Amino acid sequence: MSASPRNHRAGDDQEAHASTHTVDDVRFMRRAIALAERGAGQVAPNPKVGAVLVRDGQVVGEGWHQQYGGPHAEVHALAAAHAVAANAARGATAYVSLEPCNHHGKTPPCTEALIAAGVARVVCATRDPNPKAAGGIERLEAAGIRVTVGVCEHEALVQNAPFFHAARGTDRPFVTLKLAVSIDGAIVDASRQRGWLTGPAAHAAVHALRADADAVAVGIGTALADDPALTVRLVEAPRVAPRRIVFDRQGRLPLDSALVRTAGEIPVSVITHAPRPVAANALADAGVQVLEAAGLADALRTLWAEGVRHLLVEGGAELGSALLHAGLVHHLIIFQAPVILGAGAVSAFATFPAAVADTAPRLRVLERRVFGDDLMTRYAVFGD
Amino acid sequence: MSASPRNHRAGDDQEAHASTHTVDDVRFMRRAIALAERGAGQVAPNPKVGAVLVRDGQVVGEGWHQQYGGPHAEVHALAAAHAVAANAARGATAYVSLEPCNHHGKTPPCTEALIAAGVARVVCATRDPNPKAAGGIERLEAAGIRVTVGVCEHEALVQNAPFFHAARGTDRPFVTLKLAVSIDGAIVDASRQRGWLTGPAAHAAVHALRADADAVAVGIGTALADDPALTVRLVEAPRVAPRRIVFDRQGRLPLDSALVRTAGEIPVSVITHAPRPVAANALADAGVQVLEAAGLADALRTLWAEGVRHLLVEGGAELGSALLHAGLVHHLIIFQAPVILGAGAVSAFATFPAAVADTAPRLRVLERRVFGDDLMTRYAVFGD
Repeated sequence: MSASPRNHRAGDDQEAHASTHTVDDVRFMRRAIALAERGAGQVAPNPKVGAVLVRDGQVVGEGWHQQYGGPHAEVHALAAAHAVAANAARGATAYVSLEPCNHHGKTPPCTEALIAAGVARVVCATRDPNPKAAGGIERLEAAGIRVTVGVCEHEALVQNAPFFHAARGTDRPFVTLKLAVSIDGAIVDASRQRGWLTGPAAHAAVHALRADADAVAVGIGTALADDPALTVRLVEAPRVAPRRIVFDRQGRLPLDSALVRTAGEIPVSVITHAPRPVAANALADAGVQVLEAAGLADALRTLWAEGVRHLLVEGGAELGSALLHAGLVHHLIIFQAPVILGAGAVSAFATFPAAVADTAPRLRVLERRVFGDDLMTRYAVFGD
Repeated sequence: MSASPRNHRAGDDQEAHASTHTVDDVRFMRRAIALAERGAGQVAPNPKVGAVLVRDGQVVGEGWHQQYGGPHAEVHALAAAHAVAANAARGATAYVSLEPCNHHGKTPPCTEALIAAGVARVVCATRDPNPKAAGGIERLEAAGIRVTVGVCEHEALVQNAPFFHAARGTDRPFVTLKLAVSIDGAIVDASRQRGWLTGPAAHAAVHALRADADAVAVGIGTALADDPALTVRLVEAPRVAPRRIVFDRQGRLPLDSALVRTAGEIPVSVITHAPRPVAANALADAGVQVLEAAGLADALRTLWAEGVRHLLVEGGAELGSALLHAGLVHHLIIFQAPVILGAGAVSAFATFPAAVADTAPRLRVLERRVFGDDLMTRYAVFGD
């Protein structure tokens, strides 16, 4: 029997395996997770995965899953090590941000590649939730390789949260709600002029979020006020451009809007409920997909059926608050700019139901990052 | 002539000296700055200072300025090293968060103690702005000791910002405005019930801020709504309990308030402008100091004349916004709790003049720290 019985939950496995991990294990796993991020926008619906091979404290090879359908992170890392020396990976430790796969999918099993290379130990951040791909740990252990699971598991789970969400079984996309706010929590100033709150580094980070999503959504209020393109511009183009979604109950999206004008290049969908038929027909004629949904949850199920696994919602205040209130947001990402908008500014949550200070639910902070002057905080809102 | 001519500005000195500093220098200086913090509340109006002695990469002695009038950080660190071995400091590097003093004040010059101990190198974070204490670097260099200045200077300047402010010459206290807000920037929920937004670690941090100030102030609105004691409770008692200040134009502070009832133990001042004489007399009879001031700047000058060098303002929204708007706040400290207060909550800056998003001045982030679930951000508002 294996040291990691299959009937254990992931948490138990982590306990069983991770007791022996070191400071260096954490350092190299962080590197693997950072490498994984380079696959953002290129590998979905596969997870982002990174791998680092270390021998005698030295990195001898690094890799990441670069392209959907292409070689996995471990294979790239082994190839990099091999390019340095034929036996560079022999006796090495492999750090992989996800359990190495054990099946013949689009590529051969990574377990076999690691065994063939003579790797002595494998450290992975978390198990693979896909039953077809799992079993890698047991296969490696059967080959006499020492395995540690659960190093930096939190970061790895956050990095691929939409992937793990889908693996648990669902009929709705993973929803990330992104807002840019001032110190005083406002998204729009009193003048109602649409200006930039956050700086260039934060803007690029938002485009990276877009690239990592299947679809980007706004409410019709934002579409009318900002006429946004919702395209990915400031980072590497994603493998598949995320489709643009407007929550637009009455079909008010103008035919001369940036979204409609570019609907032929990158798909645009409007989610309506009882639109004026004339408007719906005109949008459809302009190449916009018109989807009907009775409410937000229904809209998300419709998007799931359309293949949307990860939806990034960029505003405005009403759509965001409504999704939050309905319990449909998984991650809330706030970019906070160090400015004060003062009297008359519009709070991001002006339409969110009132809470009492000392009993309001506390959101769980998953991640904080600084982009230039701005602070990004990622909160888990429910479940994940 | 010395390698660091006296007519250079501090920034130039930093350039001249700091070019040779290493990663270890930063690590040990951070330790010195952390040690310095242990003097918070005990050493004002002296600066907080920490010192670390390192030989062959090993710490052989640590110290900090513990008590106003007592030995300086360097002396404590040298004594700690001496307790280990008679010559432990010989050939060592001394990391000090402020230029070692070169004068006979309440204690002998630290420069002489460092020279006598045979220290080979001194690294200090920043120069001493006090002309009486300065000259330490030149004295050390004259004795053949290598000196590096400017390592972690930013952190050292932030740590003792009120001290450096006073040294530049002023007639008003250094003002720190502290606010606790929700994700949506609110300080009070829609129910107007006074609840705790932040958690226990943040509360303790606020008491540490109080201990580090000469006086703690609130507006009369907060005094009436919360009946606060404004005492230091959750951390070590400060050497001198900060006096309590209420900005109370009309003298409305109730005689049965917690502040007035304890005025005999820890001083309370109300800053009034044309109070009803009856009220002013009753407060004075109850042991409250009644100060008249025509406006906020005048009030601060009055507090300075009363010996207040560092004023911590804890609210409410009106007083904070008015001080900010008048350009009288040096540091703004926001504790942000991961809660959403939603519709009807009161923004911290509801009475602050409206700004336009993309032209609003950006506050400079000096420091971010996590306290439990809460994030503390310290901003420089003007000048410092």
